[in-house]
Amino acid sequence: MSASEKIRASMERSSWIRKMFEEGIERKAKFGAENVFDFSLGNPDLEPPSRVAEILAELAKDTTPHTHAYMPNAGFVETRQAVADYLNTFNKAQFTADEIVMTVGAGGGLNVVLKTILNPQEEVIIPSPYFVEYNFYLDNHQGVPKVVASHPDFSLNLEAISEAVSEKTRVVLINSPNNPTGRVYTAEELEGLSEILTHYSAKFGEPIYLLSDEPYRKIVYDGISVPSVFDAYRESFVVTSFSKDLSLPGERIGYAAANPEISEKAEILGGMVLCNRVLGYVNAPALMQRTVRHLLEESVDISIYQRRRDLFCEGLESAGYDFEKPEGAFYLFPRTPLEDDAAFVRALQEENILTVPGSGFGGPGHFRIAYCVEDKVIEKSLPGFKRVMEKYR
Amino acid sequence: MSASEKIRASMERSSWIRKMFEEGIERKAKFGAENVFDFSLGNPDLEPPSRVAEILAELAKDTTPHTHAYMPNAGFVETRQAVADYLNTFNKAQFTADEIVMTVGAGGGLNVVLKTILNPQEEVIIPSPYFVEYNFYLDNHQGVPKVVASHPDFSLNLEAISEAVSEKTRVVLINSPNNPTGRVYTAEELEGLSEILTHYSAKFGEPIYLLSDEPYRKIVYDGISVPSVFDAYRESFVVTSFSKDLSLPGERIGYAAANPEISEKAEILGGMVLCNRVLGYVNAPALMQRTVRHLLEESVDISIYQRRRDLFCEGLESAGYDFEKPEGAFYLFPRTPLEDDAAFVRALQEENILTVPGSGFGGPGHFRIAYCVEDKVIEKSLPGFKRVMEKYR
Repeated sequence: MSASEKIRASMERSSWIRKMFEEGIERKAKFGAENVFDFSLGNPDLEPPSRVAEILAELAKDTTPHTHAYMPNAGFVETRQAVADYLNTFNKAQFTADEIVMTVGAGGGLNVVLKTILNPQEEVIIPSPYFVEYNFYLDNHQGVPKVVASHPDFSLNLEAISEAVSEKTRVVLINSPNNPTGRVYTAEELEGLSEILTHYSAKFGEPIYLLSDEPYRKIVYDGISVPSVFDAYRESFVVTSFSKDLSLPGERIGYAAANPEISEKAEILGGMVLCNRVLGYVNAPALMQRTVRHLLEESVDISIYQRRRDLFCEGLESAGYDFEKPEGAFYLFPRTPLEDDAAFVRALQEENILTVPGSGFGGPGHFRIAYCVEDKVIEKSLPGFKRVMEKYR
Repeated sequence: MSASEKIRASMERSSWIRKMFEEGIERKAKFGAENVFDFSLGNPDLEPPSRVAEILAELAKDTTPHTHAYMPNAGFVETRQAVADYLNTFNKAQFTADEIVMTVGAGGGLNVVLKTILNPQEEVIIPSPYFVEYNFYLDNHQGVPKVVASHPDFSLNLEAISEAVSEKTRVVLINSPNNPTGRVYTAEELEGLSEILTHYSAKFGEPIYLLSDEPYRKIVYDGISVPSVFDAYRESFVVTSFSKDLSLPGERIGYAAANPEISEKAEILGGMVLCNRVLGYVNAPALMQRTVRHLLEESVDISIYQRRRDLFCEGLESAGYDFEKPEGAFYLFPRTPLEDDAAFVRALQEENILTVPGSGFGGPGHFRIAYCVEDKVIEKSLPGFKRVMEKYR
């Protein structure tokens, strides 16, 4: 025995992912990478906007003293003010730099907020399907997940969420646009959620928080926009990153924002800054803070993702797949014709198509396709998708 | 009640630091920044070597696809191999890229290693004085600190460490060169520690790990070098960063290295990679990984810190202060003539000299001076140091 019991158990539980990953590598070696259709990873393939390289080149020349030094744990005030100004363009809530903490990606931001508010054994309601990394993040702070299945069309099941609330509930954690479903929660869904949480917060005399993970906010299709959780509910946080919309996931830059009207604001914000420090992040990477400050309105070309979504949806539909058309993000989450989604994913693998079983996202009977790949990969994969469906339908 | 109980308690406990910090800001506003001598923060004032800007400028122009994308959670293999090659220049142990995990600074590395190996309620022995941020890092993983006082000259009290070991001991955590004392542990001390840990590991049938935090390794004086913990003890880890030796603390780049001979190596390394991910770091910032790869042999001009140490030591000695001459890092940890070190620090504050009470480092009856400031700040502060000593001696 060497690693802790928990870590050994986590490694065992996730060994199937490693096996899938290794199988993918083997298939690429055997058949050639161009003949394996890898839809397993949410690693954006689009390059960052060209402005990123321009700004980095400028910043590299910047000889202002202390640009790589420690700054306040919340981040550079210029960057936080720029984020506040940006948030003020699409929220009724009005932000100042004070309510923004720059973080090591959205993963860092989620951990900062969860550590700030969670007491051990408190519960976090998560509508499923969901990004299962959340289980680790909750466990880091001894939180307990209460997974609540959404409706078959992936809209929030407000009745089930309401029934899941207890005195131990501290947070409802949502992800919109959603990984793995591509669903964007509507203003009506957020209002409904707000009513429930307002009711129970008053009943139990403690705020139940709404924490929204929104790294895909800019990646939406058909002209829709993502409604504001801040405008729907007072006790709310948003966490996001520049990983997907600027294609900078390796640089670990994002932020957490607290509602300007949140209760006990000084305590909450002080806690977030402390947690950014004591979790070992200390602060978000300095150079990237200075870079994204100038890029808040920018994004990669979203129409490329939309084109791929449409290509995939048309192909899957004509092959007989049953799915909800994604409104955002770059994932599809079709139903499997077999109950055993892992078996179906293995069948796709036989066609050199790599996907992930829905069970890995709390959504059994589905599988996840990440379409952050070139169009031709999608096109070449479609006959394989069709053959597998014909076999199992 | 809004922030968690633990976080509220932490904020209250650390409120004196904030008060000190605010007092410093007030004094700077009142007397002018140039008349306040701020030795309270370990934020390196030397600019990074000029090669940093050159490399950043080159990397900004690099259009290789996916340079800002996710890479394996352990980091780019080229960077990890460069770190391994560098470690092989001064350790007998021979590293490969496999034993290196790139981390979000040393803070990230410490949390990664601690989460990998600690079960809840297991104990971590920490020789004091020590960097109290460790208490938070242990608590993040439900570890329990067992603080063991070092000898008055800050060398390890091996007898006391041996007595502190129990079946619950999982780790001994050292920091060399030490913050706040400037002490470098000798090869003999490490050998003595190794004997103790080897004995008890065999007795209890479980490895007790040695975790060495070494961000100041290159900042040593008078030609000494920091002995290798890898060569002293098999079940060992080193965590470090480029924050101090390259003056890049805001960029959050460092690494954790496991002894190539460590027991259950695959499990330990797999655990470290998993923990880097699930703690929300995901990976060390990509651009900085690619930068430091070329800078492993470099550092800021250490002779500047040595000159400041000498200047401070001469001044304090002639003013009648009692202290151990630091062998490394950029801190002095003199004894206070009063038992109440906070009162003495307040007295220094009256002279516009900002330092930190030793109690904040588990070293009551001392105070910490961070001399990562310009020579003239040291020179101008010395009369004030003298006046306060004359008052209390």
